[in-house]
Amino acid sequence: MSSYTELEGVFTRLYRYQHLAAIVAWDQAAMMPPGGNEARGAALAELGVLMHTAQTNPKLGSLLAAAADEADATNDDFKRASVREMHRQWLYATALPEALVEAKSLAGSRCEHAWRAQRPANDWHGFAANLKAVVDLSREEAARLGDKLGLGKYDALISRYEPGVTSAMVTTWFSELKTWLPALIAQVRARQATEPSVAAVGPFDISAQRALGQQVMSHLGFDTAHGRLDVSTHPFCGGVPEDVRITTRYTPDDFAQSLMGIIHETGHARYEQGLPRQWVHLPIGVARSMAVHESQSLSFEMQLGRSAAFLQWLSPHLQRTFGAQPAFEPANLTRLYSRVKPGFIRVDADEVTYPMHIILRFEIERALIEGDAEVDDIPALWDRGMQTYLGIDTRGNFRDGPMQDIHWTDGSFGYFPSYTLGAMMAAQWFATIRATTPELDARVAAGDISPITSWLSANVWQHASRHSTDELLTKATGTPLSPTHFRSYLERKYLPR
Amino acid sequence: MSSYTELEGVFTRLYRYQHLAAIVAWDQAAMMPPGGNEARGAALAELGVLMHTAQTNPKLGSLLAAAADEADATNDDFKRASVREMHRQWLYATALPEALVEAKSLAGSRCEHAWRAQRPANDWHGFAANLKAVVDLSREEAARLGDKLGLGKYDALISRYEPGVTSAMVTTWFSELKTWLPALIAQVRARQATEPSVAAVGPFDISAQRALGQQVMSHLGFDTAHGRLDVSTHPFCGGVPEDVRITTRYTPDDFAQSLMGIIHETGHARYEQGLPRQWVHLPIGVARSMAVHESQSLSFEMQLGRSAAFLQWLSPHLQRTFGAQPAFEPANLTRLYSRVKPGFIRVDADEVTYPMHIILRFEIERALIEGDAEVDDIPALWDRGMQTYLGIDTRGNFRDGPMQDIHWTDGSFGYFPSYTLGAMMAAQWFATIRATTPELDARVAAGDISPITSWLSANVWQHASRHSTDELLTKATGTPLSPTHFRSYLERKYLPR
Repeated sequence: MSSYTELEGVFTRLYRYQHLAAIVAWDQAAMMPPGGNEARGAALAELGVLMHTAQTNPKLGSLLAAAADEADATNDDFKRASVREMHRQWLYATALPEALVEAKSLAGSRCEHAWRAQRPANDWHGFAANLKAVVDLSREEAARLGDKLGLGKYDALISRYEPGVTSAMVTTWFSELKTWLPALIAQVRARQATEPSVAAVGPFDISAQRALGQQVMSHLGFDTAHGRLDVSTHPFCGGVPEDVRITTRYTPDDFAQSLMGIIHETGHARYEQGLPRQWVHLPIGVARSMAVHESQSLSFEMQLGRSAAFLQWLSPHLQRTFGAQPAFEPANLTRLYSRVKPGFIRVDADEVTYPMHIILRFEIERALIEGDAEVDDIPALWDRGMQTYLGIDTRGNFRDGPMQDIHWTDGSFGYFPSYTLGAMMAAQWFATIRATTPELDARVAAGDISPITSWLSANVWQHASRHSTDELLTKATGTPLSPTHFRSYLERKYLPR
Repeated sequence: MSSYTELEGVFTRLYRYQHLAAIVAWDQAAMMPPGGNEARGAALAELGVLMHTAQTNPKLGSLLAAAADEADATNDDFKRASVREMHRQWLYATALPEALVEAKSLAGSRCEHAWRAQRPANDWHGFAANLKAVVDLSREEAARLGDKLGLGKYDALISRYEPGVTSAMVTTWFSELKTWLPALIAQVRARQATEPSVAAVGPFDISAQRALGQQVMSHLGFDTAHGRLDVSTHPFCGGVPEDVRITTRYTPDDFAQSLMGIIHETGHARYEQGLPRQWVHLPIGVARSMAVHESQSLSFEMQLGRSAAFLQWLSPHLQRTFGAQPAFEPANLTRLYSRVKPGFIRVDADEVTYPMHIILRFEIERALIEGDAEVDDIPALWDRGMQTYLGIDTRGNFRDGPMQDIHWTDGSFGYFPSYTLGAMMAAQWFATIRATTPELDARVAAGDISPITSWLSANVWQHASRHSTDELLTKATGTPLSPTHFRSYLERKYLPR
């Protein structure tokens, strides 16, 4: 048996364990009654141990080296890429001492658990004490990972989510955004002040919302033979490519929250469902990066779902579902769902102000991990950033400030940039799609989204992790990632001449 | 670390794997879209390999011996019983060569897969060819298991489901049933012919049925913090004691099928939910046997759910749910849900004719496994049995005859007796409950089922597998299992003076 074949066996087993973990975690969020949580936690932890053991099997290092040689000897490009991705997974699994992983996981759980009560109480000091432990351990993690990978500290953390992306690259992109985005926000705000819109009047029956959601998912090509829609407190896309589980939550006051959420998650889902089935058991077969994943959900929600063309298609469906009302006029829907308004909360932000939230977090967390700032400095950095970037005074409001997210709480430093890289990427995919299909809006308005999904399938989904993100973008759009397309997109959509 | 403590570690890990298997299997039956099946099968098989490896760890034999010595040395009764149950599980896990287990699983799958088309086509000859392979392998299994356990062949198969029960015991019980049950059936039929009943008139709204089912579950003490109700093609009780998943299926024509099914599964569920939480991770903490489990579902469905007293409580709830109609009069409900009618299909049988189906299968499968009959003899044995026991002519109707069940198809020989032992046991529990609570019916009619559930909890659920079935019955009711109580129960219920 070749080393590569042996590795395929190891990773196939891991893929099956991953299947169990994904379905059971979905169940925990969407189905499990509260009394099952303790036993579930123990079962998932046991599975985690098992997966870690398989991933750190001492044999893997030499198998990977031998398999790389095999690929070189036969000049087999696919095998080379496949081994590269196996190696990447193995590197991250073995890079950190177990004691550090456990200590960080424990500190993260403790911080998160206390945060649930501290956030509503606006208790920054209580929170900061726990966060310091998380930051200390994250710094150690970053240093060790950086040593192993030959990367700077914060770069090492980014690389877990975005292979090939460094903080220098992010800084360049974000610096460019900062040169034009604040002015653009102001212009859009001024223009929108002269364009009143009519709010939709509820209540909106939950089962009607569910039926509409299913209908829209199906219009967007979600394959119900390989997935389903359910309800959870925090919407997500989980499961496995053969069986993708997306969730939403319904409120009778506002159908759009759920509907736009479903469109967003359907973007994630179609990426997963569209990954090449023949590689599904291998690291080369998984989604390329978090930013590429987010570029799919944002392609569906922002580029498509909140576009005038799509809302024109949606309008009669809303009227049929909830009864006619003035708010459902296409032009009004477009105004409603492209409203720009700076606010405290990232997850509630529109796509124009959203990058400013990300830039703020990126700047603070980079400084934290590199040792250029301490936890106690966060409130001042936060206030200054929010004032500068969004003109918002957040002083003393920790709850809706640095305590609003779970990412720092549980130590997921390095993740935030992916959101905005994903937004930039979505704009870049659509710039190319529009160039090849000039009549795109007319087709979308008439209910035909196939130019989008065919293109994404051929240029993104089908490649999984075969190429680097840079290669993927260059092959698909002619250039590496650039904020230019994002700027043109926002100007075209929010400041049409 | 003591050997016992080490074993606790091994079985705790197995219990966690079992948690994953149970939840993922529930998902497969109740949630999974069809396209997920292949990946799911692979993931579950991988988990099966893992569990088998853990159960057959070569260290276990000596650890079990040492732990038994520890328990003896300290004269620790609980530990002794705990080791006995660990040993039992280990014995069955290691008794058979893996090649045999695999061959049988393969033959069973093949037979079952072909059966799905052969049954509707009434194709006995096609089916018989596959069944022969299953029977051959089951005979080998029985012989090896019997050698290992010092039991006869068919006894060895029964012992997997009913530890301590032999075919000689079953023969004695069933012979007694055969002396009086056929006459009783005839008498009941004659009496019921003079007691017309009014059928309930549908359709019955599915969401109303669901709400009623939830209400009845809650009345029966199902703990929704530790379990849930969903829909599947074949109703079952799954999950884990901390999170019990029961299922039903709804049809608009007949609410009773689902409602009585829910009551039945709630009986299984309360046993699981009522197992002692502190032993839940150990073999001593699981349900005692299949018959004891069935005695719980039949306690809930037959002894309680279809009783005049319970139906008196239910009547106004039916009227409130579906609107008043003559069928919902308590006396009419009692007649409707205690209707006795011999029929072809076991799973559709009433509790009076049901044992005759079981006796027929017991006699045939015992002969098959012991080598006293061959697959080709089944149709003749079947026809003769159905004619003698239920006065039904089944000649040529294989589809509703020996091809109706899945048990032989997949080689689960030895399981059938448990159903009727469970029915006998349920009658025996209730004989004792009635003796200690003479006003039971009045309390049930008034909506108080606590005398039943408190007694079952204290006398059955809380003991899990601490005692043998014989000890459990003797401690709880004063005598070992006996069909006397079942006879008195049927006479009292179906032939009241």
